[in-house]
Amino acid sequence: MTTPTFLNEDFLLRSSYAKTLFHQYAKSLPIIDYHSHLSPKDIANNKSFENLTSIWLGSDHYKWRAMRALGVSEDYITGNRNDAEKFEKWAATVPYTMRNPLYHWTHLELQRYFGIDQLLDEKSGLEIYTQTSSLLKTEELTTRGMLKKMNVEVVCTTDDPIDSLEHHEKIRKDNFLTSVRPTFRPDKSFTIENEGYKAYIEKLSTASGIEINSYERLMAALENRINYFNSKGCQLSDHGLEQLYYTAEENKFDLNTIFKKALANENIPVNETHYFKYYVLLELGRLYHQKGWVQQFHIGALRNTSTRMLKVLGLDAGFDSIGDFSQSVALAKFLNALDSTDQLAKTILYNLNPANNEVMATMIGNFNDGSVKGKIQFGSAWWFLDQKDGMEKQLNVLSNLGLVSCF
Amino acid sequence: MTTPTFLNEDFLLRSSYAKTLFHQYAKSLPIIDYHSHLSPKDIANNKSFENLTSIWLGSDHYKWRAMRALGVSEDYITGNRNDAEKFEKWAATVPYTMRNPLYHWTHLELQRYFGIDQLLDEKSGLEIYTQTSSLLKTEELTTRGMLKKMNVEVVCTTDDPIDSLEHHEKIRKDNFLTSVRPTFRPDKSFTIENEGYKAYIEKLSTASGIEINSYERLMAALENRINYFNSKGCQLSDHGLEQLYYTAEENKFDLNTIFKKALANENIPVNETHYFKYYVLLELGRLYHQKGWVQQFHIGALRNTSTRMLKVLGLDAGFDSIGDFSQSVALAKFLNALDSTDQLAKTILYNLNPANNEVMATMIGNFNDGSVKGKIQFGSAWWFLDQKDGMEKQLNVLSNLGLVSCF
Amino acid sequence: MTTPTFLNEDFLLRSSYAKTLFHQYAKSLPIIDYHSHLSPKDIANNKSFENLTSIWLGSDHYKWRAMRALGVSEDYITGNRNDAEKFEKWAATVPYTMRNPLYHWTHLELQRYFGIDQLLDEKSGLEIYTQTSSLLKTEELTTRGMLKKMNVEVVCTTDDPIDSLEHHEKIRKDNFLTSVRPTFRPDKSFTIENEGYKAYIEKLSTASGIEINSYERLMAALENRINYFNSKGCQLSDHGLEQLYYTAEENKFDLNTIFKKALANENIPVNETHYFKYYVLLELGRLYHQKGWVQQFHIGALRNTSTRMLKVLGLDAGFDSIGDFSQSVALAKFLNALDSTDQLAKTILYNLNPANNEVMATMIGNFNDGSVKGKIQFGSAWWFLDQKDGMEKQLNVLSNLGLVSCF
Repeated sequence: MTTPTFLNEDFLLRSSYAKTLFHQYAKSLPIIDYHSHLSPKDIANNKSFENLTSIWLGSDHYKWRAMRALGVSEDYITGNRNDAEKFEKWAATVPYTMRNPLYHWTHLELQRYFGIDQLLDEKSGLEIYTQTSSLLKTEELTTRGMLKKMNVEVVCTTDDPIDSLEHHEKIRKDNFLTSVRPTFRPDKSFTIENEGYKAYIEKLSTASGIEINSYERLMAALENRINYFNSKGCQLSDHGLEQLYYTAEENKFDLNTIFKKALANENIPVNETHYFKYYVLLELGRLYHQKGWVQQFHIGALRNTSTRMLKVLGLDAGFDSIGDFSQSVALAKFLNALDSTDQLAKTILYNLNPANNEVMATMIGNFNDGSVKGKIQFGSAWWFLDQKDGMEKQLNVLSNLGLVSCF
Repeated sequence: MTTPTFLNEDFLLRSSYAKTLFHQYAKSLPIIDYHSHLSPKDIANNKSFENLTSIWLGSDHYKWRAMRALGVSEDYITGNRNDAEKFEKWAATVPYTMRNPLYHWTHLELQRYFGIDQLLDEKSGLEIYTQTSSLLKTEELTTRGMLKKMNVEVVCTTDDPIDSLEHHEKIRKDNFLTSVRPTFRPDKSFTIENEGYKAYIEKLSTASGIEINSYERLMAALENRINYFNSKGCQLSDHGLEQLYYTAEENKFDLNTIFKKALANENIPVNETHYFKYYVLLELGRLYHQKGWVQQFHIGALRNTSTRMLKVLGLDAGFDSIGDFSQSVALAKFLNALDSTDQLAKTILYNLNPANNEVMATMIGNFNDGSVKGKIQFGSAWWFLDQKDGMEKQLNVLSNLGLVSCF
Repeated sequence: MTTPTFLNEDFLLRSSYAKTLFHQYAKSLPIIDYHSHLSPKDIANNKSFENLTSIWLGSDHYKWRAMRALGVSEDYITGNRNDAEKFEKWAATVPYTMRNPLYHWTHLELQRYFGIDQLLDEKSGLEIYTQTSSLLKTEELTTRGMLKKMNVEVVCTTDDPIDSLEHHEKIRKDNFLTSVRPTFRPDKSFTIENEGYKAYIEKLSTASGIEINSYERLMAALENRINYFNSKGCQLSDHGLEQLYYTAEENKFDLNTIFKKALANENIPVNETHYFKYYVLLELGRLYHQKGWVQQFHIGALRNTSTRMLKVLGLDAGFDSIGDFSQSVALAKFLNALDSTDQLAKTILYNLNPANNEVMATMIGNFNDGSVKGKIQFGSAWWFLDQKDGMEKQLNVLSNLGLVSCF
């Protein structure tokens, strides 16, 4: 059992400045996480995890992709094999993830939350599985235990407008140390090309108490839910989009006609779909501004590329990749439309394709209006880019083309 | 008062080779600047600047963007505050520009032109303002004084076809040490989507003495002005374009009809606009070739994104960013169309989006015809990219994919 | 005569790990080259090269581009000058290729195959020409001699469906040490916009013995040739495409109608061309899968940009560059269409525009099905990118976003 030197307390800290900055300043600061996909239900129920498989392999598409790349059968990934068998397959995969952040994440987590310095591989897998399983039974490693251990002051979850937010309410009533706040993510409400759109709109009708039979009523229902989320402490919205949409002004469509086609499950041409989304997003943007919220846009993912696996596993199962969509023109038009009537909320743009880093880092400089420091932000490196190389690129581009001091 | 070590005479020079090359070779060479936006009027009148605000903050949109990002009110940027107040706001901004080239530019200029080693910030601002104001009254720091001090042998300004070039004439008659030459930048003459297009064409009619009532007469007027510019020492043209334009050959439009729509302020579809620009640029390219000029293309900016601020401040006020336009196909078609009739002038392509660096560095290799060394050039890192990272990327890409020795 | 230190046996090996890995492991391994453009005829005939001009300048468009950039006349590149004159021009060019891989390739080849440490330039040119010419007469430096010297175990050539593969047959019968296998590259069979399309289809009819008068017969002929290639040891296909093609499903065209327009040399709209190519490539993909072949896609080149030089020199003469085509959506649709019916062969994606590296490195993770390790591969840095910077970028992106261990 050797301590991997790359994971000692100075991991990634090369200069004495870096060590001082981290150990004397950064390390003891609390975490304020304004974008996460943590489950409010798990926090409300203070869920205990039976074993590492349920935490690590239950829904982590990063690990799933690595196993698939190595030729591991789906049985061991999302299939019917038992947790120990799945873990052993993952353990055997780990040595092959060298140079990928999974290698570091895996060993950092073992070391810092379980005190395990051993390298995970085919041989050590079962032993580590047993060790961690018993540690996971302790209070320290329940959902709330981990949030405490990580010194998380605030965490914002990602929630659908139809959510009741009952779990957030329970957590609040418990006076839990970490403030857990909802984020309003209404993408399903305007993804009119989705098969399940009509069914979703019915749920939104129920949640809002507003019968949604027109574009106007759709927006009324969303405003209703924004008010509700706001009353539950929400201060953020979030959108996951391939790109912002914009249709040349000569193309005028009727929003209500498009909406009714969507409810009737009719085929809608792409330019009408974009037109519809553009106007819903504009209207939402105005509501966010009115509430004083921050709007977030996660831009550039190409999602659910495998129809075969979409049928089996549903959304977000590791079949997504980085897209090369046109971004600059429509994004500028969108932000400008809000800015031109002074209804542009504070905004964070997260970019998935590093080829667009420079576009984003300069776009954020176009709509600062002197009202507040860093009104428009270039969000931190996200998803595939959430690793050393991706973060360095984002920080360097922002530094050179904008002010990293406002980040 | 400390000397910042990053600004000593070996700033950026890490190896002994770098020091030798800079100090023994590069440092004493004159500057030959074939693309600038210096004001010929200021040089003709040998303008003195009252204070650093008028030089630094009068029109420098880099600094304006930084101040806006920090939440500084527009009053202190382009508004009615007095020069001292504006300078103090800029001084307070400087420490927050760390890692941005503004930080280095600011301190290099203070050190090398004013002998000031002090760091500029909120505290030192007023003192530095007073110090520099009196230095700016000396002959050494007038417009011509600075050109001498910087050992500028040639500077090319950027001029509109309607300009009389009277200031260039005055400078020439004064036998000023620096040769100041005009550059022909006729973009307004074919930006038919602009509101002020008709008014511009009237001015061009006046300048050329040619009544412009057709496409043919437009090109005749431009040829007239090219001849005039040529007679005044111009050897360069310049264009600032989102992209080169090309419309598939099956789409045939009548150039004269499009031009008349533009004069009548009618709405023109995007593909007709592109078609028109493509043919004007081709015809101009042929004229440049005939004159033996070099044509420059600054490609890829997304300009004037904020309509609100465009109304207040006009063009080039810091609301521009890097675009992600398609470049390769149309650019190749354009250069090929000129090359196919042996009418391709020497050409410099400046690229604003580093994601296109490789496209540009290889495009320039497609139309060298053996007639001259480096006929087609990849221009140096420009605008947002005119900083260490941007320049290194441009030089490395050019080195790997072309010949940096021809640059 | 000095030994350039950058070319000693530790060239590029900076750390002791690198030296150990190279000298103790990599160096003695045989070369298995699954993609090359070597001439099977030259190998079959064990061609001797008369001089370095015939090897280096006979068809190497890398060197041609460098010479053109330097302003060398086409006479000395592809023209009528004699071999010694051409070589001297190249020799004079070499010093100007500093920082380009040509500089290293040139001197590495001189050193490692001819034992020449001298730097090639105008002065040393003639001497080196004479020296190498006599060495080229030895058995060691015939085509087969060089393959032996380089320890090439397998080399796959690139072959047209109409090729008889007679040279491969001869090499096989000779029991030559290197296994030389064909690769099926049928791009001409569906490039319906080409002028010579009809003539090509006639040759394909002859080669396959199938009269091709319909889309169905075209595919039958291709299947016939796939079977033939397979019988000759082929296990690979290859395609060189600007991008994968996909037309929105609402656009339905008749493949046979398009094919007949192509044979009649009629003008075919771009979306019909893409539709046709998409379906041919899908059908070919299914055949490759059935045969157990690996399919390769070389994506992103903008080819033959100079119509003037295309007429003089034909294809692949150094007038190609890196394109900025949209890749992600159509590529995902294409791979998904094959995957959805479980007919996706093992696939290698080679990318020419580094701005798309992240798109490719994540795309390959979308269609691994657990059947085999590394089913979908991100091919090594190719063409313009086949140099240190390009290779490092490819390896780093693949490491961070995928598994370099499956590469």
